[in-house]
Amino acid sequence: MEDIKNLKSVDKVAEEILEWGKQHGVKSAFDRAESLKPCPIGHTGACCKICYMGPCRLVGPDAEETAAGICGATLPVVTARNFLRMCAAGTASHSDHARDMAFTLLEAATGEAKDFQIKDVKKLKKVAGILEIPTEGKTKEQLGKEVAEKIIENFGRQKGEVSYVKRAPKKRQEIWKKWGVTPRGIDREVAEAMHRTHMGVDQEPENLMMSAIKVSLADGWGGCMFSTDITDILFGTPTPVHSTASIGVMKGDEVNVILHGHEPTLAEMVVEVSTEPDIVAYAKSKGANGINLVGMCCTANEVMMRHGIPTAGGFLNQELSVMTGLAEAMVVDVQCIMPAIAQIAKKFHTKVITTSLKGKMIDAIHIEYDEHRAKDIAREILRLACDNYPNRTTEGSRVSSFEPLIAGFSHEYIEYMQGGSYRGSFRPLNDAIMAGRIRGVVGIVGCNNPRIAQDSYHNYLATEFIKNDILVVSTGCGAASCAKAGYMTPETALEKAGPGLREVCVAIGIPPILHLGACVDNSRILTIASHMVEEGGLGDDISDLPAVGIAPEWMSEKALAIGVYFVASGMYVIFGSESPVEASSVVKKIKTDLWEKRFGGKLEFINDPQVIFEKTVAAIDGKRDALKLKKYEPGKFGAERVLMTMADRRKLEKEQAAS
Amino acid sequence: MEDIKNLKSVDKVAEEILEWGKQHGVKSAFDRAESLKPCPIGHTGACCKICYMGPCRLVGPDAEETAAGICGATLPVVTARNFLRMCAAGTASHSDHARDMAFTLLEAATGEAKDFQIKDVKKLKKVAGILEIPTEGKTKEQLGKEVAEKIIENFGRQKGEVSYVKRAPKKRQEIWKKWGVTPRGIDREVAEAMHRTHMGVDQEPENLMMSAIKVSLADGWGGCMFSTDITDILFGTPTPVHSTASIGVMKGDEVNVILHGHEPTLAEMVVEVSTEPDIVAYAKSKGANGINLVGMCCTANEVMMRHGIPTAGGFLNQELSVMTGLAEAMVVDVQCIMPAIAQIAKKFHTKVITTSLKGKMIDAIHIEYDEHRAKDIAREILRLACDNYPNRTTEGSRVSSFEPLIAGFSHEYIEYMQGGSYRGSFRPLNDAIMAGRIRGVVGIVGCNNPRIAQDSYHNYLATEFIKNDILVVSTGCGAASCAKAGYMTPETALEKAGPGLREVCVAIGIPPILHLGACVDNSRILTIASHMVEEGGLGDDISDLPAVGIAPEWMSEKALAIGVYFVASGMYVIFGSESPVEASSVVKKIKTDLWEKRFGGKLEFINDPQVIFEKTVAAIDGKRDALKLKKYEPGKFGAERVLMTMADRRKLEKEQAAS
Repeated sequence: MEDIKNLKSVDKVAEEILEWGKQHGVKSAFDRAESLKPCPIGHTGACCKICYMGPCRLVGPDAEETAAGICGATLPVVTARNFLRMCAAGTASHSDHARDMAFTLLEAATGEAKDFQIKDVKKLKKVAGILEIPTEGKTKEQLGKEVAEKIIENFGRQKGEVSYVKRAPKKRQEIWKKWGVTPRGIDREVAEAMHRTHMGVDQEPENLMMSAIKVSLADGWGGCMFSTDITDILFGTPTPVHSTASIGVMKGDEVNVILHGHEPTLAEMVVEVSTEPDIVAYAKSKGANGINLVGMCCTANEVMMRHGIPTAGGFLNQELSVMTGLAEAMVVDVQCIMPAIAQIAKKFHTKVITTSLKGKMIDAIHIEYDEHRAKDIAREILRLACDNYPNRTTEGSRVSSFEPLIAGFSHEYIEYMQGGSYRGSFRPLNDAIMAGRIRGVVGIVGCNNPRIAQDSYHNYLATEFIKNDILVVSTGCGAASCAKAGYMTPETALEKAGPGLREVCVAIGIPPILHLGACVDNSRILTIASHMVEEGGLGDDISDLPAVGIAPEWMSEKALAIGVYFVASGMYVIFGSESPVEASSVVKKIKTDLWEKRFGGKLEFINDPQVIFEKTVAAIDGKRDALKLKKYEPGKFGAERVLMTMADRRKLEKEQAAS
Repeated sequence: MEDIKNLKSVDKVAEEILEWGKQHGVKSAFDRAESLKPCPIGHTGACCKICYMGPCRLVGPDAEETAAGICGATLPVVTARNFLRMCAAGTASHSDHARDMAFTLLEAATGEAKDFQIKDVKKLKKVAGILEIPTEGKTKEQLGKEVAEKIIENFGRQKGEVSYVKRAPKKRQEIWKKWGVTPRGIDREVAEAMHRTHMGVDQEPENLMMSAIKVSLADGWGGCMFSTDITDILFGTPTPVHSTASIGVMKGDEVNVILHGHEPTLAEMVVEVSTEPDIVAYAKSKGANGINLVGMCCTANEVMMRHGIPTAGGFLNQELSVMTGLAEAMVVDVQCIMPAIAQIAKKFHTKVITTSLKGKMIDAIHIEYDEHRAKDIAREILRLACDNYPNRTTEGSRVSSFEPLIAGFSHEYIEYMQGGSYRGSFRPLNDAIMAGRIRGVVGIVGCNNPRIAQDSYHNYLATEFIKNDILVVSTGCGAASCAKAGYMTPETALEKAGPGLREVCVAIGIPPILHLGACVDNSRILTIASHMVEEGGLGDDISDLPAVGIAPEWMSEKALAIGVYFVASGMYVIFGSESPVEASSVVKKIKTDLWEKRFGGKLEFINDPQVIFEKTVAAIDGKRDALKLKKYEPGKFGAERVLMTMADRRKLEKEQAAS
């Protein structure tokens, strides 16, 4: 891995554009990361700026024992408080996104947002069942309204429990109760975390870190999971779909519109109207051959999972996509949008369009999204992009290569693919793990961060894991990374996977790295893990599973909240970077030793992908041992016949459907 | 004012203890503030640590024009985001306090918290009226339950408006609507602010600062105001009461128990049980002459306003009170509690007792408050303090001087004192202002901060204002400051007030500096201002009043939220320090010019008390001019007869009551 330390990216297309940028004096986050070193004090969690007596910097020899802020807060207090506040912000973000989704479902159901319909009635009924809402004799609109209202209640709930807590294994729920971390209402947990981190409130590191667990659980089993479910109800539960990935998906002869951000509502409308004859004709009237929608960041994952819209990649590709000179418009909403894009866009013809009241930007065009006239706004945006096509110059780093992939692995589909509509279950996966065909499961998720060569940790880990018969599930920028590298095709199993995993992938017809969706869709991993426990044979709690969660190139507060809710759910979680609580050995021990004791999961920060790999494999093997499963033996499986190709499988499904 | 620059405090008793500490090698926040300089980057708002690509430090020549974080965030974005997050934390804190109060009211009403009763039925009915809850034929318990439930709804509300918004002048409500800053539910605003400040969401300084307005309004007209009202309902609306102030209120021959923090529920119970014969006898059995309760910080203000319990002072006195060696126990809950107290307590016999699950502390004893057995817990704490009395040594800085004061000026009482039960109104105050007897009104509120000589700005400003016929209302540590200086007696009017103000004070029998309560009770100032507008003659909005709000020695995020909700309510607000957004002239202009244009109020940071004074007076005179009031003429009034002393007034009231 030493060779990547000096690289900016291992995304070949990104590298090409960066090289072009270097030659043309166009800078991006990659360059800023080089010239702007992180504050060494804040980077370790040793800076406290929660009151105006400070900011206090707790440094010096033996700082952990001797340093204190003006109020007397020590390093363990300061770092834990910073950590908790990050989790609160992460939870607030996902949950605010989920809230918007819930209101859209409500208005779709009442007919107030006429451009939206309930597309997946099966999922709606399933969710209603979980929420204990009777479904019989109700129209989908009636039911949708009740489901939306019940979910909205979860944000404002003051006492009781977030409704989805009960989807976790029973044993897990008991653990949360025992430690007092079962989340009540989502917003209440955010507000309480902010209160606890105010000057002079919670000043015991352990108590603060337990609050981080609680607020993050409100994210995982609240905001994220609600968002996933509602998005499926409104726009359809994903099933496998072909797509392509790379900045090279932008087309030289079409109006390229980049859909960037996180909330899929407006993006879905853009997808819908983009094929309207009027709009296509309008594009043609401007000299283009049509409209080419391109995803970016998690909006990419949303529209790819459901419509196969290609992705131009994750977080770090946003400026680079503008540098192609091919982007007529970049439409953004919330989260992980760099304000730099409006500045770099000035050097090209690209129009950056902000659409959320919550997320404006200097030098961008603001066209405010309104769910009551969503399609009209979508059309307005596309027309604006078409109008901009004639302004395209020859300036920019033209790139055109891309990789194919298959995305769309919802947890429902993963269940379905293991037996079809009538026999869908997690039995085959559990059996494969129990037998040692599959050694274990790893989630590779989270952001890109220019402090690490783009995609390098993601891709290294993904390929090493599958080589060692470990199934990989992926979301967010992690998924974009593997997609761009071309790893998300069934063929990868043949080329790169270990023999046991390969056998299973070929049998089911899936890639060994499954694209599960956007970063809110990490909730799908929670659901899968819960189903695997329920299926039996792999223990009676998530913490028993031979599974590990990794965010190798994280940067956002959301990522941290996700990491913590996985730990709280019983998972071993590794983040690939220095630690944001590095300054305090006390806090480091809490998030490893204490959390492991209480929750069976722990959070480690390891800035070496090889060590991450080794520790992950050791943890998986350790869980296998604890479950008294057969010892994993490399190369044991795989000599057998290839059971069924994906094409065979589809044929069979069609026959089943017809019968 | 130059002479105070080198002082640590102008609280004479505090200075004496600090001197003792110096001689005995016992250090406090005053010393830490000397040795620990604030980070010069973070202090100006130029440090961004909201994602793990950073922290990014935006410095250098022309930083505002040229510097950017890795994501491209500029100084205006970074400083505005930091500012908003501070307001969110402040709002979360007050509101979480208010939520606890609301649940206590609910459980008092249902009988679940049997130690609590609804003491002020008149206030309960008034609040019910505001909340549009019919009162007729209901027991106070029924009504209390409905009021509590309605208020609790306000925390979780997802759409609509915080109920108390309508208590503001009509014109003000229209302004909030126009700019889209009417707060919906309290927690929702906190969560949204946290979302907006997440990496890559809101990146337009103006939009961020408008969000600061919105979340802070949820504090002022939500959390703070609910808290004040519920506290009055449960423990009685304050009326004038004698008390004393200074660390010197601790007694050499009694068990001293310091009640420190913010939420008054447990403190009230301690007050109630402290006179029980069993407890008193227990204290005596340990060799003490009784139990001496002493307040600290805002809990002090709460129990002083209602019971006349003396205050040992505000925020910066907490360690010093331990250094007397006289504190058997310091009972703390949430907010502004220094973790240093548990460390300094180790040098003495003092037991520090944390009582809130939200606020634990290393090396403190944790006795968790539970409203279902509140008095039992209060007794347990007092017994523990008594048990500790024999451990007292001769160590410590014994001090005994203190100042008398009158506190207890609720807005209800202020109305009442201007005409009695039947003719209570704000007419006399408005008339006095219109005539120029009183030039204007200033609120001096907020914290102490060891970066400024303790109390020096508070006291300088208070005395200068009253000398210039400006009525001062005060809360929080600001009130403690004036109290300790001996300014909160009616006699101060004779000694220090200008002739016009003196005349009014003597007529009504009040001090020229009115103690309005704790920091949540800044809501009383909003109510008073609204009543003054309603009374007529001083314009039709709060922004018309010749009134200014000042937090001269602030340090907490709560203080900032308070400042911003006053600005949003139309008030000119001055904070006495460097500016936390100093790094960005753009943001500085937003919070002054833009806010003034939109809300008629602005927020300035001025680290010079004389300039604060001059700008305040100029602003008051400017408002007088705009209202076309008589020009204020120093010395014009005051030659007339003294209308009525306080004793006379009380006699009259008794006669009225008897008739």
